[in-house]
Formats: sequence, C-alpha cells, structure tokens
Amino acid sequence: MKNDVKKGIGHVSVGDAYDGFLLIREATKGLTSNGKPFLTLMLRDASGEIEAKLWDASKEDESLFVPEQIVKLAGEVGQFRGKPQLKILSVRPSQPTDDVHVSDFVEKAPIEKDRLIEKLTEAIFEMQNATLQRIVRAFIKKYQEALLTYPAATRNHHEYASGLAHHIVSMLAIAKELHQLYPQLNKDLLYAGIILHDIGKIKELSGVVTTTYTLEGKLLGHIPMMIEEIGLMAEELQVEEEEEVLILKHLVLSHHGKAEWGSPKPPLVREAEILHLIDLLDAKLNMLNRSLEKVKPGEFTERLFAMDNRAFYKPLFED
Amino acid sequence: MKNDVKKGIGHVSVGDAYDGFLLIREATKGLTSNGKPFLTLMLRDASGEIEAKLWDASKEDESLFVPEQIVKLAGEVGQFRGKPQLKILSVRPSQPTDDVHVSDFVEKAPIEKDRLIEKLTEAIFEMQNATLQRIVRAFIKKYQEALLTYPAATRNHHEYASGLAHHIVSMLAIAKELHQLYPQLNKDLLYAGIILHDIGKIKELSGVVTTTYTLEGKLLGHIPMMIEEIGLMAEELQVEEEEEVLILKHLVLSHHGKAEWGSPKPPLVREAEILHLIDLLDAKLNMLNRSLEKVKPGEFTERLFAMDNRAFYKPLFED
Amino acid sequence: MKNDVKKGIGHVSVGDAYDGFLLIREATKGLTSNGKPFLTLMLRDASGEIEAKLWDASKEDESLFVPEQIVKLAGEVGQFRGKPQLKILSVRPSQPTDDVHVSDFVEKAPIEKDRLIEKLTEAIFEMQNATLQRIVRAFIKKYQEALLTYPAATRNHHEYASGLAHHIVSMLAIAKELHQLYPQLNKDLLYAGIILHDIGKIKELSGVVTTTYTLEGKLLGHIPMMIEEIGLMAEELQVEEEEEVLILKHLVLSHHGKAEWGSPKPPLVREAEILHLIDLLDAKLNMLNRSLEKVKPGEFTERLFAMDNRAFYKPLFED
Amino acid sequence: MKNDVKKGIGHVSVGDAYDGFLLIREATKGLTSNGKPFLTLMLRDASGEIEAKLWDASKEDESLFVPEQIVKLAGEVGQFRGKPQLKILSVRPSQPTDDVHVSDFVEKAPIEKDRLIEKLTEAIFEMQNATLQRIVRAFIKKYQEALLTYPAATRNHHEYASGLAHHIVSMLAIAKELHQLYPQLNKDLLYAGIILHDIGKIKELSGVVTTTYTLEGKLLGHIPMMIEEIGLMAEELQVEEEEEVLILKHLVLSHHGKAEWGSPKPPLVREAEILHLIDLLDAKLNMLNRSLEKVKPGEFTERLFAMDNRAFYKPLFED
Amino acid sequence: MKNDVKKGIGHVSVGDAYDGFLLIREATKGLTSNGKPFLTLMLRDASGEIEAKLWDASKEDESLFVPEQIVKLAGEVGQFRGKPQLKILSVRPSQPTDDVHVSDFVEKAPIEKDRLIEKLTEAIFEMQNATLQRIVRAFIKKYQEALLTYPAATRNHHEYASGLAHHIVSMLAIAKELHQLYPQLNKDLLYAGIILHDIGKIKELSGVVTTTYTLEGKLLGHIPMMIEEIGLMAEELQVEEEEEVLILKHLVLSHHGKAEWGSPKPPLVREAEILHLIDLLDAKLNMLNRSLEKVKPGEFTERLFAMDNRAFYKPLFED
Amino acid sequence: MKNDVKKGIGHVSVGDAYDGFLLIREATKGLTSNGKPFLTLMLRDASGEIEAKLWDASKEDESLFVPEQIVKLAGEVGQFRGKPQLKILSVRPSQPTDDVHVSDFVEKAPIEKDRLIEKLTEAIFEMQNATLQRIVRAFIKKYQEALLTYPAATRNHHEYASGLAHHIVSMLAIAKELHQLYPQLNKDLLYAGIILHDIGKIKELSGVVTTTYTLEGKLLGHIPMMIEEIGLMAEELQVEEEEEVLILKHLVLSHHGKAEWGSPKPPLVREAEILHLIDLLDAKLNMLNRSLEKVKPGEFTERLFAMDNRAFYKPLFED
Repeated sequence: MKNDVKKGIGHVSVGDAYDGFLLIREATKGLTSNGKPFLTLMLRDASGEIEAKLWDASKEDESLFVPEQIVKLAGEVGQFRGKPQLKILSVRPSQPTDDVHVSDFVEKAPIEKDRLIEKLTEAIFEMQNATLQRIVRAFIKKYQEALLTYPAATRNHHEYASGLAHHIVSMLAIAKELHQLYPQLNKDLLYAGIILHDIGKIKELSGVVTTTYTLEGKLLGHIPMMIEEIGLMAEELQVEEEEEVLILKHLVLSHHGKAEWGSPKPPLVREAEILHLIDLLDAKLNMLNRSLEKVKPGEFTERLFAMDNRAFYKPLFED
Repeated sequence: MKNDVKKGIGHVSVGDAYDGFLLIREATKGLTSNGKPFLTLMLRDASGEIEAKLWDASKEDESLFVPEQIVKLAGEVGQFRGKPQLKILSVRPSQPTDDVHVSDFVEKAPIEKDRLIEKLTEAIFEMQNATLQRIVRAFIKKYQEALLTYPAATRNHHEYASGLAHHIVSMLAIAKELHQLYPQLNKDLLYAGIILHDIGKIKELSGVVTTTYTLEGKLLGHIPMMIEEIGLMAEELQVEEEEEVLILKHLVLSHHGKAEWGSPKPPLVREAEILHLIDLLDAKLNMLNRSLEKVKPGEFTERLFAMDNRAFYKPLFED
Repeated sequence: MKNDVKKGIGHVSVGDAYDGFLLIREATKGLTSNGKPFLTLMLRDASGEIEAKLWDASKEDESLFVPEQIVKLAGEVGQFRGKPQLKILSVRPSQPTDDVHVSDFVEKAPIEKDRLIEKLTEAIFEMQNATLQRIVRAFIKKYQEALLTYPAATRNHHEYASGLAHHIVSMLAIAKELHQLYPQLNKDLLYAGIILHDIGKIKELSGVVTTTYTLEGKLLGHIPMMIEEIGLMAEELQVEEEEEVLILKHLVLSHHGKAEWGSPKPPLVREAEILHLIDLLDAKLNMLNRSLEKVKPGEFTERLFAMDNRAFYKPLFED
Repeated sequence: MKNDVKKGIGHVSVGDAYDGFLLIREATKGLTSNGKPFLTLMLRDASGEIEAKLWDASKEDESLFVPEQIVKLAGEVGQFRGKPQLKILSVRPSQPTDDVHVSDFVEKAPIEKDRLIEKLTEAIFEMQNATLQRIVRAFIKKYQEALLTYPAATRNHHEYASGLAHHIVSMLAIAKELHQLYPQLNKDLLYAGIILHDIGKIKELSGVVTTTYTLEGKLLGHIPMMIEEIGLMAEELQVEEEEEVLILKHLVLSHHGKAEWGSPKPPLVREAEILHLIDLLDAKLNMLNRSLEKVKPGEFTERLFAMDNRAFYKPLFED
Repeated sequence: MKNDVKKGIGHVSVGDAYDGFLLIREATKGLTSNGKPFLTLMLRDASGEIEAKLWDASKEDESLFVPEQIVKLAGEVGQFRGKPQLKILSVRPSQPTDDVHVSDFVEKAPIEKDRLIEKLTEAIFEMQNATLQRIVRAFIKKYQEALLTYPAATRNHHEYASGLAHHIVSMLAIAKELHQLYPQLNKDLLYAGIILHDIGKIKELSGVVTTTYTLEGKLLGHIPMMIEEIGLMAEELQVEEEEEVLILKHLVLSHHGKAEWGSPKPPLVREAEILHLIDLLDAKLNMLNRSLEKVKPGEFTERLFAMDNRAFYKPLFED
Repeated sequence: MKNDVKKGIGHVSVGDAYDGFLLIREATKGLTSNGKPFLTLMLRDASGEIEAKLWDASKEDESLFVPEQIVKLAGEVGQFRGKPQLKILSVRPSQPTDDVHVSDFVEKAPIEKDRLIEKLTEAIFEMQNATLQRIVRAFIKKYQEALLTYPAATRNHHEYASGLAHHIVSMLAIAKELHQLYPQLNKDLLYAGIILHDIGKIKELSGVVTTTYTLEGKLLGHIPMMIEEIGLMAEELQVEEEEEVLILKHLVLSHHGKAEWGSPKPPLVREAEILHLIDLLDAKLNMLNRSLEKVKPGEFTERLFAMDNRAFYKPLFED
C-alpha cells in the first residue's frame, strides 16, 4: 500500500491508498440505520472527484467540513454500488501553512489565462467597426476578471475554470478561418457576437468552484440578461441608436438557434446563423475530444447526454 | 340600386351600390395581360374592408392613391373568385373640407379611451407595493398616448385601436376577481405583470392604421425588448436591486408560457403562471365572442387560425 | 423522547417517538436475505404518511395488517435511504372501543361537506334552462354521497376527500365571475358542464382511502363513461332529443382540450373552451397554493410533475 | 363528335361530346364580373365526377338544379385550369319516365348487398359467446338498411355505397385467417369488434349521396357515440354487467390506436390491438388497390393524402 | 426442501432448493464493502434466468466462471430487492462426461428447425418469378445455418433460438392468406421481401447465446447492410439490371415504415407497405401471446416496452 | 423598346423587349376555354428563367418545342398573376450554325472545372492512409465526368452545374482549417467522407439541365446507394475487411445527422459528426450568400424554404 497522491484522485483505483489535499465540493448530513450521524463528502482535485463517508460526525465536524473547504486526508479507495469510494482514515482542515489554494483543486482550461486575454485582445484589435469595437472593449473591461475564470457551463462542455474564455477564443479562431474562406461574412459582427454571446453566464452561474444557477439565472437566463446589459452599455456609450447595437443584440438573442432551445427569435441575419453553428461546432468538438481521450482505440465512450445520449466509437486505425 | 353607405363597407352585399369615404390600407401596382397599369386597392372603414381595382392607373393616380389616404368613392359591389370586389365608378382623394379623419376608419375598442385610462388608474391606485407601483406608473406615463391607441396584435385578438388597453383592462378585471377567490395571489404583482406584459408591442408594432412589425420587432420581439426597458426604468428609479424588479421581469419574460411560444423561461412564480392563463383566457374570449357575433344560432364560425384552426358552433338554445 | 402524536405523522422528525393510531394504506410481503418473512406497511393519518417494517411477520400478522385497517402503534422515527421510516415497537389492530374511523385518517378538503352541497345547490338554483337543470339535478341526486367524498384525482390536484366537490365549487365561483365580466357566456351551460365534467371519476376511481383505477376506468376512462351516462340519463328524463344534451356531452367530451390529453374532440363550443380553461386554472391554483404553503419565502417548491416538472419560486416580498 | 355516355363521366377526355344522365352533387351560385348569375354544378355518375357551369342561371334554374337532382344533359368536355369541365349545351331535370335512380349514380362496393349480408350472417353464426352474439345481432337488426348502404368514410377508403359493409366483410375474412394461424385469439371478440367498430359512422355521416358530417358527428365523433349505443343496447338486453360488454366497448373505443388519432385509450386487450391492425391493413389495401388500378406499370399513383401523402410505384414486372 | 430442477430456473419460487446445470450468460466482478472480491453471475436455462453471487471469488474462479460456460450448481432460491436470487452452496464447471450442451440452455422457437426449413422451401417453391426466386435461394443457401439458429432480435419479439426463421415462416403464412383475399398482391415479391427483410440481423447481432450488437451492426444497422448484400448477390447472379432487384431492395429498405424507425425511405410500393404491416402484426402477436400466457384471466401483463409500455388485460370470459 | 438580351432573362423587367436564345426546361400542353391547343414553356438561360405561352400550337410545334431544345425567340416581357411572362412574337429551334450549346444555358459554379479537379487532387494527395486514399481515387476516376458537371441538389443549395464538386471543394477547405485548429481530427477520414458523402447523387439525380429524381433515387435514395457502391468498390480493391471501409460507410450513412433526415444511424464517430456539421455549414453559407446578394442593405431576402422558411435581414452598416 503506497501513497498515490501524485496521480490525482481522478486516476486512483480500488485498493489504492491515498494521502493528500482535497477540496470539499459538497457535504450532506445523514443518519445510519441505528441513528448515528455521518457526513457524505464529495471531494475533488484538478483531476476528478470521489465520494467519502465521514462516520460518527460530531457537531464540530459538521461545521468544519463544509463546501469550498480544503482538507488534508489519508484513506483507502474502496467501492460502493459499483463506484469508487474513499474510506477515511484521518482528515483535518487545511492550515495557512499548508499553502494550498482553492484554485489548485479545480480543472482548468488547457490554455493559460495570459494567453487567452492576449488572443481576445488581438481579435478586438482586428475589428474596424468603431461601434462594435467600443461595446466589446467595454464589456471585456467590465468583466475581465470573471471572464477569465468562469466555466462556459455547469456541465457538458468547457465546464472548467477559464472555460468561457477558452470557448470564446476557439470560436474566434474558427470565425477567422471561415471569414477567409467566405469573405462575404462580416468579421467584426461575428467577432463581437462570439465575444459577447455567453457573457451573461457570468451572472447566470454562481462561480467556478461549486457552479450552480443564481436566482436571476433561473428566472431570466443568460440570454435575456445579456440583451438588457447590451442595452444599458449602449446607452452609457451613447450608441443606442446605431443599427450595430440592434444587430448585436439579435446575434446574442438568437445564438441558441431555436425557440425550443431558448432563443425567442431564430437567427435572421447571416452572421447570427454562423455564430450559432460555430458555437455548436466548438462545443461538440470540446465534448468529443475530451471523451475520446479517455478511451482506447476500438472502444466506445460513455454516453454523452448533451449529444443526444450517443456513445462514440474510436477507430483502430490512425491518421 | 340605392346608396348603402350607411351600413359600412363590411356589411355590403354583391349588387349593392356604394358611395362614401374609405381609407386606403394597401395599394399594389399591377399590369394587365395587354400591358396596361392598374392599382389594386385594399379599402376600409371601421366596419370592415374590401378590394377594388383602379384600371388604367396613371402615374398621378399612383402617387395620389397611397396607403393611409382617405378617398371619396362611388361604385358597385361585384365579386371576384368568390370574394366581394368594389367596381370603381369614380374616386378622388378626400379634401380638408370633407372633414374626415383616419381615426374614423379603423375599428375601435368597445370602450372609450377615457374609461380605459380611468380603469387603469384605479388598478394602480389599489396597489400597495411601492416599488411595483412606481415602475408601473412610470411606464404608463411614458407610453400613455400609444398605450391608448395601439392594438394588442396585428391580428387574431384585440386587433383594433385601443385594443392593447382594452386587453389590459379586461385582464385586470379577471385578476381582481381571482384574487378575491384565491387571496393567496399577490395582487400587486399580478396587476403590475398584466399592465406591463404587452407594452413592448408599442415598439414591436408600427402603429394603428397599417400595423406591421418594426425591424426591432422582427429581430428581437416584444418580450426581450420589454425586459430591457424594465431594466432601464429600474435604474432610473434606482430600484434595480429590489427583488420585485427581477420577479416582474420574470412575469413579462414567461407570459407566453413556453419556449416554443417565445418565452425563454416558463412561469416559475405562481403569479407568472396565472398571468399566462389570464392572458390566454381574455384573448380567447375576445376572439370567440367577436366570431360568434357574426354567425346565427345553429351555424359554425369561420375557422379561427389562432385557435388551432377550429370552427366554433353556436347552439340553438339560449341562456 | 416524548410522544409526538399530536402533530400528526406528516410532521414528525427523525428521532421522534410515536404513539397513536394510523391507517394502513398498503401492505406488502417480503423476505429477508436469510429467508424470514416481513411486512412493509405504508401508514397514514390526515397529515401525511410514513413507511414501517414489521419484522418476523407471522401468518396471523399477514391477515391482521391489511389495507384500510386502523392500527394502534408505538415506535420511533428512523431513516432509510434518505426517507423517514417508523421503527415499530408495538402494534395492534384498533378495536371498536378505540372509537377511531377511517375517515379521520385521510386528508380532507378545507371546506366542510355541508357547505359544499349548499354551494352546489345554490348554483343549480340559479340555472334557468330547464333541460340542463333537470339533468344536473338528477346526477347530483344519483351520486350525492360519492360526489361529496371522492377526490378529484389520485394525485396532483384536489387529491383528498371531498376533492371532487371542492374542485367543482371553486370552478363554479370562477365561472360566476367570468359570466359577470363576459355576459355573452351561457352561464347555465357552463354550470352544467362544470358540475358534470369529472363525475365519471366516481366510476373511474376505486374510492377515497386507497384510490386506484377500476378496470372500467383503465379500459374506458371517465370521459367516455360519462358521455354514456348522460345519454342514459337523458333517455330516462325523456330529453334525449334536446340540443342541450348534445352540447352538454360535447362539453364533457372536450374538457381535456386536446386528443393527446384524452378528449377525442377539441372544444368546438365557446363554453366548452372556457370550461377547459377554468378546469386548468383551478387545478393549477390548487397545486400551486398547496406546494407554496410548504416552503418559505426565498425558496423553491419541489418539482411539480403535473406542471411540466417545474419548481416554483416564492418571492421574498409580500402583498 | 360522338356520344361517349357509355364510358361514364369519369372516363371522358377533353374534346369528347357527352349526352346522358348525371346526378348533381353540389350546386353553388356565382356572379360573373359583369354581374350575371351562374351556377357551378358538380355532376357525377357511378364512374366519377366533373364540374360544369350553367351560365345566365334564372331563379327557376336555381330551384331546379339542386343537390341530389338527376339531370339529362348534353355538352362537350373542355378544360379549366388544368381540369376537365363540362360545357353545357342543354340540360333538364329527369322525369319519372326516364326511369333513372339516385342509386345508379353513386359508386358501389364491388360486392352485392345480398352477398355482404350473407357473409355477415355467416360470421355471426360462427360466434359461440352468447352475450357478444346477442349484442351484434341486435345492432345488425337495428341498422341493417343503413349498414348496407353507407360508405365507410367521406373519403380515403371504402368511400362508396355499401363501403361500410364491404370494409367489415373484408376485415372478417382477415380475422378468420389470423385466428387459424394464431388460435390464441378470441375469435368471437374479434368478430364482434370488427362488426361494431365503425357502426357509429351511420350517425356521424349524413348519408350515401352527398356525404358530410352531422352536427353530432362533428361534436362527438363516431367512437364516443358508439360507446353510448353499446351501453344502451346492453341495458336493453340486460347484459350490462357482463365483462364482454366492457371489453367490447374497449375494442370500439381503442380501435384508432392512439389518443392523437381519436382513441382516448390505446388498445389494452390483445384483440383490441389486432382489431386496430386489421382495420389499418384493410383500409390501406383498399386505397392502394384502387389507386394502382388507375396507373400503368412503371408509373406512380397520385399522392394519397391518407397515406402520409405518398405516391406509390407500380413495378414493370408481374406476378 | 426438495430438488426442483425439473421445472427449470424460470419457474422456481423463493425458498426452493436447486440442483442442476445452468449456463453463465454474464459474469461481473465486484468488491464488498470490506474489500473482498465476488462474482455476480447471470445464469440461465431454456426456461428463464436468475442472478447469483459467488462470494470470496478467487482468481481461479474468475477464469473458470465466464460467459457461455455451463456449470453444475446446488443452491437455494432467496430474494434480493424484490427479485429472486440464487444462493450458491456448491458450483463447478461442467465436464465432457456431463453430456450437456449450450443449445440446451437457450429458449427455442416452438417449431423445430426441420419444419422451419421445410416451410421456407415450400414458399420458395411456390414462387414463379425466376429472378426473385434465384436471389432468395442464393441467400438461403449462404445463410442457412445461421438463419435457423439466430433470434429475430435481442429482445421484445422472437428473441429466442430460431426466432428469425420462426418470424419469417409466420409472416409467410399471413402473406399467403392475404394474397388469397387480395389477389392483386404480388405474392412472389411479398415472399421474397419477407424472407430477406431481416437477414441482415445475422451480421448485426453477435449470435444466439449472449446476443449483442456487432460493431458493424452498431455503425450501419441491418437495413443498409442488407441493401449492400442484395447488390453484391445480384452482381454475382448477373441480374443487377432487373427491376426486381431494385424493388426488392426497396422492400427491405422501407420495411421499418418510417425514417424515425430506421427506414430512410417509407414504403412506396404496395407490397412494401404490406410487408411492413405483416412484420408489425406478427411481431406484436408474438409479444402479446407470450406475455398473456404468463398471466391469469382478470390480470394485466407486465408493461411491454416495445408496445409503448402498455400492460395488457386478459379478460375473464373465454372463446 | 430595345433588345435586352445582354442582361439575361433573369434580369429583365416588365415592358422589356427580348431577342435571343433560350433553353426549354419544361413544355406542357394545354387547351384554351374555347378548345384551342397551346404550349406553356419554361425557358431559361444561365441567369434565370421565365414562363411563356405559345398560342395555337400545331402538332409540329409540339414535337419541335421540347425540353432541352434551344430556341431563338423574340418577344416582350409582360406579367401574369404577379409573375413576369414572356409574350412570344417569333420563335424557332436553334440551328447548328447558331453555335449555341446547352451548357451555355445553365447556371454554373463560380469556380472553373479545372480548378475544382485541381483542388480535389491536392486533397487526395495530402492523404496518408492508403486504404482511404485508394477508395477515394477509384471513385474520382469512376465518376470524374459526372462529378464535375452535376449539381449538389435539385434546389436549395449548390443547385447549379458543377455544384457537387464546388460543395466538396468548399467543405475540404473548411476541414483543412478545422484540422489545424483541432489536430485530434483524423484528416484523411474527414477528407474521404467529404469527397464521397454526396457522390450517390450522381445516380439519384437525372442530370444537369432538367434535374429530377431517378426511379432508383426515389425508391432508395443516395445514401443507401452509396453504401452499396463503397461495398462493391472495396471488394474490387480487396480492402473490404479493413476497418477504414466500415468507418467510411458510417460517415456516408450518418451524414444527414438524424433518422428523420434520412440517416438510419446518427454520427457515432467524431469525424462523422464533424462531416455532418461542415456539410450543414457550407450548404447554409451557399444559400445565405446567394440570397443576400440579391437584396440591398436594409432589406430582407425572400423566405428560404430549406432554412425553416426564414427571411434574412441584410444590415445597413458594412464590414
């Protein structure tokens, strides 16, 4: 039995010992059949997550082991109803001297923040339409910090730290290439639409570590919230009468493609249609690439909920 | 052959003579098989409309007989492909001395504007929640003129002058009664939702006489436009942080009931669900009552497009 | 550990002791892993229900502890897979001297039977159409007892004793108000439709205590059953040729609104459409009000299956 | 120009002369562009139908040339908007001495009435379940005349005189064979279901010559009407408590297969499912055989509305 | 406690002892809460299947007890979460001297292989179209062995050894009868379509004992695979230009009836439509008859997934 | 009145004279109300098409003026029911000395054939997987002529000469860029899928000038036809056992994305999903760009049937 902390909790096997730091993502109280209190902890590091039970939990334990708390834990990996479960041997909250940080325990985009902001800045610099450029710049300034840390969704695609910026930067790259192949496309409009289309998620989602929906997110959703934000920003910049503002709102409003998918109007401008397709393409490639990485040639991935529950096959032959 | 102008163009029969004033709603140029230009005019008064052909139309005719122009016309009612058509014997644009006004030629709500504004004011006066009351008051002040003249839709229900205010006032009456039967309902919230739910139509539709969709209406629709307006108004009134604002936006956003019908979020607050149902109830009763008025007991109405294309039966026995 | 029977089984917490009378709603035999027989009992009083296990159940126990039997039980509230479970310390069937009655153990409408029948009688008294009035009176007479005890459904809305009558009486109140706002509505027809629309449920459902579907209910459903009943009743009253009978059948037949929802014909008479909408409105308000009562301001209700699985938010501010 | 009456109006070509008797199926008044009245007549014999215009129609003409009147007509086959149209040279109502009868002018089933009733009687004779046999016998007795003359539908399949009986007799033949292949099927139940499933159409449709829907047919439909009829008949025969009655009602109720297609309950008894499939099979074969008869090998039929608008191909090779 | 092996594992009850041979259909490794390895075995004979746990499984056990291995087992029938489970007292792999064969442990069609091939041969002998007959003969020759052993599906209908041939033979019998009732049907085409329609399943499914989908089956499906096979066979027989080949491919391609059900083209030839309906009829009768056999009169079957999840009622009265 | 032949028939206005060569796409016989024969001709050149009537058409005319015949025609542009119609003054079939060719009268891809084949060859040259490359090369060789002349569809997108090759070449360009952005994509597989996905259209469609569906196209469709072709080709090249062949068939089979859209299997391999999206993207851009070219900034296009009947707006501001 040796310490396997190096490989991360997402890669341990049944029977492994574990000794290291983990972040509590969720903590639920329970009662055993003979009435003893216990805690079910969902623990994670940047590689994945695992469930653990803390038996005979005292009132103090309940107040110590709460979501977003980092813990030092030693245990053994067992199994419960077909899933790995961590048997806790010892556990304590982390201390300042441990020098561990919440941000170390969440999955991150494969590209660094600096590089992401650089790419974004480059795209904005390319834009020639002053109105669109000013609006985009103002939003980047307002939300820069959150934009670089938020995921693009709570699950399915780009659901990791900086996922939102990573998604935007990938979409900008596709747009750039498409514009070269089809010069009729209005690049500035497409860029502006791509950069702003999901920024409403910053108000729709609660944060990076334990991402849930805010009340505003539940009752309004990121699309109408963003239409309102663009309206307010246009007033501030005194460009509210420019047609660019209306068209940009339309791109954001229609980017889910259909009423059933949350866009009260379908795309009715060429760049709106293309924004929708690029969004789909990048989200699907992100999901597919990450799922296929986890399987060997000749195998199928797990079923992907956001892709109509399909399991994908990885061929045996290679490029 | 006698002059039937008294009964209004909506009530003439084939063979009737006609002599009176009509409003041009639409004018389309055409060319006969031997190349002669003519105008197809869609003419209306407050009772209905009829098509007419102006043969051998000169360039001058084309510039005189345009939409929203009132004309003095004498003719005979004939028939073309199963529909009445007015054969023009003489026609001239109206003159100031004729003392006729566009507003005389459009259908109007069965309740006077004064009475409508009185009813609205009463409802607002009943409200006790200061935030909701202030927002509603501000909108009524901003849009009073348009609110009292706009139709509630381009067709289907309340599609006449003051239709929007008429629809609101009827819904308020239903809400008042429901609140008495179910005191759990938050009356202030329901009233505010009813008054504001369709005000976005003032920007979505082009006007009263020849109602079409504005560009903003086509690309955004009245629901997202109104969310933005409430946001801006709340900032002005410095109440943007109150939960009432969020809930009111949700009521407006969800009042179509389903994503497929244009509401990106379904009703998730009790009063939002009830607003949706009252809207449906009042719109359907308006359509049904007006269609059934046109048929005799023992007959079916024409098919009503907005009610799944059903034709309704009017029973022979009476209340 | 004190006796908490006062507050009712629907309000006990894990750890509470319990000593009181409960009604058996369901009793299922099981076998432990080492082959010992046991009974799983679903027990209820007017406030709610709880599961209990009776270990080492003898043949005699199996014959004593059956559905609709009241038992005197002492035990402790524990937990099993996240749900409360009653640990039985002692249990015996109730005796005549206990003076407890099945009707004390089921949830009831918030309005007394006397008041419900009074309201129904008032409505019938208001009716002026002799044919409709006679039919309605005859049905009330035939089914009075069941009508006042049956629930309106097995679950979702008005699923409690006298629920059917409660639903009818609420709908009549809405109809009365709507008729005042829209005098075109045929009140007699609407009243007759409301009173009869769900009476078929008396044959579709098995009863008040352990409500299930009868064979006839499963194979025909309450709507076609009621059409047949109206036909038979009309023959008895010798009014089968009156148009009122046909229209009344149509109201009952179409009250679910759509073929997919069980109405082979959609509403094709104004009052049929309004009956459908009032039915919806009252059912939804019943569900919403009862769910929202259980949560605090700022919280969401549980998901409501019959309302497209939505969870509803209770705002923080009040009327 | 020779008289082509021998081949029937359904087989004439543009340019043919016509002289013979025809039945008026529909007569509509119109007005020419210069205000002259005319009649549009839809005329038919057993082979098909054709449109004709009677110009300068007098008031007397309007009262003579009405639906279900037979006329003696001479004319020429022309064409209007791509469809054949009969140019009337002379026309007069038929006289008693002409010895022509409405029944000669409608399409008929390919099997004689005598043979149809014989087949029906044979099937009933084969039945051994007394309850089912009595009910079926009673219905045959009650409706024999109409059963042998009604079509099975206004269009699509078996839409000719005796079509209803023809459809039943074909279905009985399929059922008999299926019962031999699958002896588990309850033949008596299947026979009873087949014979009664569409008898409600006798009240749903107006008759044989100009088949439309009755008011009862529009507001209730043949399925609920038949459930009621079986209920009344069972009371008369005092078998209303037998399970056969309930199951037979279920077969009739569910024979359209799905709620969307008019059956509030889907088939929940084996013979109900098989009744639905035999109904489908026979209706489709009737449509297919009659459409394919009209085209040559190597051609497609016209699009068949009731078969999802498909056009069917007739192969070049033969059996 | 007596040995109940005679009645087969599908008919044992909780508490029965068992001693006999069973086939392993599935074997899954698990780990108890205290880390001990065990095997979950799914065991079957021709009458049904049961789960069993082999506790403290050694590495050797893991290699001995694998799918398609027959074992000699003694144990007792217990229960786990409402389902029977076999408690293993002793178990060993079968030996050659046991003289047991995998084919004895799978469910079989109720008709012997010899009789099935005889029926098939008869049908082919009846065919008069040389092209169709040659193609069918060639396929029967190529796949005879598999055709007589394969099931028609992994579940739902004819999911037993020889199920494919059984399904074909039943369908041929229905087709023969239908052809007598409707002589317009091209019997040769219908026969050829029936025999070939599901032969692609031989490549789509993995075999008889533990039937799963092959990779080709998952990525292409039996319909496109069979179109290709008919094309290759037609080339071999040098009949690829005959229209019969195209029409036969169409029958196979369209036999699922709709795009949503896997047929890229709907039936566009009469016999294609009839093939689809016969396929449905035979599959449904197979499911219904087998499910109804398991219940008593007055009961409902379990819900049948492939029949829209309906449970079917077995009436109390009999034929 | 001057000769406007220079600008092409697609650009003429009502009142213009016309004198030039046109191709007959369709010729239909008709009969006037007084029985005179005439021909309705649909005439086209590379710029568009127009209808014309040839009155008093003789038998000789009927045999001269047939589809795919080029004619020399002088006439005047009039109007019929809102659409331009050519009034014929004189018309004669073209003569060899006119030196006009059918290929001059059809719309062509904006890229020359030489350039298209060059691009295709480059892509194939880039491929490294020998099996995929050999199959693609073999198909290009087999169908080169047709591939370079066929349209990609009968209407909607790339519906012009060389449209198929143009569509393939555009998709290859997108694929190349995507592969650079997402190197995980198997470029060879994607290229092979793109090149072959629509080649079945060569057998599904009848040709370039008057494109209709072949019998095989109607009964099988291009997707199953192409699966069969790949199978036959793989046998010829003796690579039928390679997994590449199966995966390539899957890409072609699934490229419509869903069963409802004609793919019996949805994409289950990453490159299949991406092929589907690139196909969509290129088809939509082709439609959008061509429709938007025809309108001015500030206008909407006509409704595009293949894009859910949407009309697209062209913004006033520019890139």
